[in-house]
Amino acid sequence: MADELKRFPAEVLEEFCTRTFAHFGVPGKDARLAAEVLSKADRRGIDSHGVARLHTYFDMLTMGRINPNPHVKIVREKKSVATVDGDNGLGLVVGPKANEIAMDKASQFGSGWVSVFNTNHYGIAGYYALKALERDMIGWSMTNSTKLVAPLWGAERMLGTNPIGIAFPGLKQPPIVIDLATSAAAYGKIEIAKRKNGRVPKGWIISKDGEMTTDPNDMINGGALLPLGSERELGGHKGYALSAMVDILTSVLSGANWGPFAPPFALRQEIPSRSVGKGIGHFFGAMEIDGFMDVNEFKQRIDEWIEVFRATKPTAGKKVLIPGDPERDEEIIRARSGIPLLQPVIDDLKDISVKTGIPFPD
Amino acid sequence: MADELKRFPAEVLEEFCTRTFAHFGVPGKDARLAAEVLSKADRRGIDSHGVARLHTYFDMLTMGRINPNPHVKIVREKKSVATVDGDNGLGLVVGPKANEIAMDKASQFGSGWVSVFNTNHYGIAGYYALKALERDMIGWSMTNSTKLVAPLWGAERMLGTNPIGIAFPGLKQPPIVIDLATSAAAYGKIEIAKRKNGRVPKGWIISKDGEMTTDPNDMINGGALLPLGSERELGGHKGYALSAMVDILTSVLSGANWGPFAPPFALRQEIPSRSVGKGIGHFFGAMEIDGFMDVNEFKQRIDEWIEVFRATKPTAGKKVLIPGDPERDEEIIRARSGIPLLQPVIDDLKDISVKTGIPFPD
Repeated sequence: MADELKRFPAEVLEEFCTRTFAHFGVPGKDARLAAEVLSKADRRGIDSHGVARLHTYFDMLTMGRINPNPHVKIVREKKSVATVDGDNGLGLVVGPKANEIAMDKASQFGSGWVSVFNTNHYGIAGYYALKALERDMIGWSMTNSTKLVAPLWGAERMLGTNPIGIAFPGLKQPPIVIDLATSAAAYGKIEIAKRKNGRVPKGWIISKDGEMTTDPNDMINGGALLPLGSERELGGHKGYALSAMVDILTSVLSGANWGPFAPPFALRQEIPSRSVGKGIGHFFGAMEIDGFMDVNEFKQRIDEWIEVFRATKPTAGKKVLIPGDPERDEEIIRARSGIPLLQPVIDDLKDISVKTGIPFPD
Repeated sequence: MADELKRFPAEVLEEFCTRTFAHFGVPGKDARLAAEVLSKADRRGIDSHGVARLHTYFDMLTMGRINPNPHVKIVREKKSVATVDGDNGLGLVVGPKANEIAMDKASQFGSGWVSVFNTNHYGIAGYYALKALERDMIGWSMTNSTKLVAPLWGAERMLGTNPIGIAFPGLKQPPIVIDLATSAAAYGKIEIAKRKNGRVPKGWIISKDGEMTTDPNDMINGGALLPLGSERELGGHKGYALSAMVDILTSVLSGANWGPFAPPFALRQEIPSRSVGKGIGHFFGAMEIDGFMDVNEFKQRIDEWIEVFRATKPTAGKKVLIPGDPERDEEIIRARSGIPLLQPVIDDLKDISVKTGIPFPD
């Protein structure tokens, strides 16, 4: 697999992203911020959320569907909580700024909680949770997104893959980083199976008639992803409930478009039948560890937690991982050897290069 | 099934619980509170967490392992956050008091977040989340518990079923109430299958060697429950991560015993090999809706969310439910016809009656 892919230094791709955003009038600092969020996904091995998405942002900016220079502001607040208007900016800019508001509130009030409307796709949930660690806080991050997932016993797309991110710092150990979509599987995996003319495991998807299927085409042609837990017997109602929780905290509470009304990210996706708010929604939280426990004591307890869980008696041929391990391992590899890109992604970036005049390394 | 079960008015069982707690010197107000929490589980149809557990509380109080008259106090705080010492009281008393602290903080600071140590099993997570609705708040509730669940790719019990509760109020519609264990299935379901000499679905349990199995005896004899998602392919790492999140927020952050060191609830359960804190841990959160959005507007948006999700195109023979629907339906039925109890539960209650002299209706 690695042989098929051309590798690029993360810094080179990040610089290309920065210049692409700046091309549309995104102010320098914001362009760098947006590129940093995208690059973090590439560096951590979450290929679906990194530079592979740049062309979609490019399209949205070209069409004027995203405001390149938003005025992100608090529209309502009470001490530790606030609602923030993202002014239809890039989620990659609105997200970090709203997350900063949550952390500033946490500095002042012990915790900070911000629900955001009128925003767009914000990259990986984990980026925001990790930011809080730099300030000795526990960081939370959620977003809703374009509909892809059916509620349990539903036969149509009603919810996004609505991720939950949360991170806890260790002292000598690296942090525990939780970043999970509330669907059973990622949409990208369905697309990969389709390209390979393969099947997907039972429990990932349903057809447009609501039947369980293993044919990726059934999902892509009007079917839906299943929530975490997949079916009633295995707890599919729980994944649906978690996805609902994310949808409500990010979008009902903020005044964004919730559920099936979340606007599409890509141009090819259908426009929802009606609007129930502005943009999509995010939710950020930060809690000062020091408000609960001495920071070093907490970090030592996390270290011990990690050590004990790593030492769990394993099932045959496996070992117990700590949430965040796979991304951390990938980050080390990619820091050395660069970011591997598929040819279609390279073609997309070259297309941007042609259209903007920003050089892309060949 | 209903014919096999004798039914009792909820008030009668609640009164019996109150008097049982009071018998051990639990102050009247606390005894009523504890009974109210247990009764809420019975009324909502969560039989495993109601009066069926009274004998276990009775045993723990008889053995002096729970403090009947705890002094619940804040030991560290910063405005919207606090750590609370439960003084080894009944979780059914410590939980409501700590939850009250979170809600009082939310009144003052927009949100309140309380991590609790030195406490015991607190009943259903949903009780606490529902309490916040009475004050126009969004309520969160989590607890860790005795180890039963293996982390993904582990072959031993390391985590409790660690539930997450959260509730959102509607205006004309009833609230959305999320209350879910982070395991694929409840332990009670394994016990039921064992009693019936039946099998359980693949994905619920592993044997003591870490093999997937459908024989409930394999789990009971040293095996483990699987986390929500069951296996890697269906997202078992996500259920493990959510369970880890609950464990850390409730118990690493508070100073309680986390993971496999959570003390047992029942006398027959093994005592952990070592102690890494005091008691088990809870985590409560409350957010004032008014700090984010006009309360009525939020409730109207929740009503609309509920109406839209109920109208989801269903899979054959099913309909999409709103989280909390099954418990709400059961609450209506049981308010009319009483709480159905299995004979072993009735025998347990009669045993308490004999030992305490508190009359139990026959």
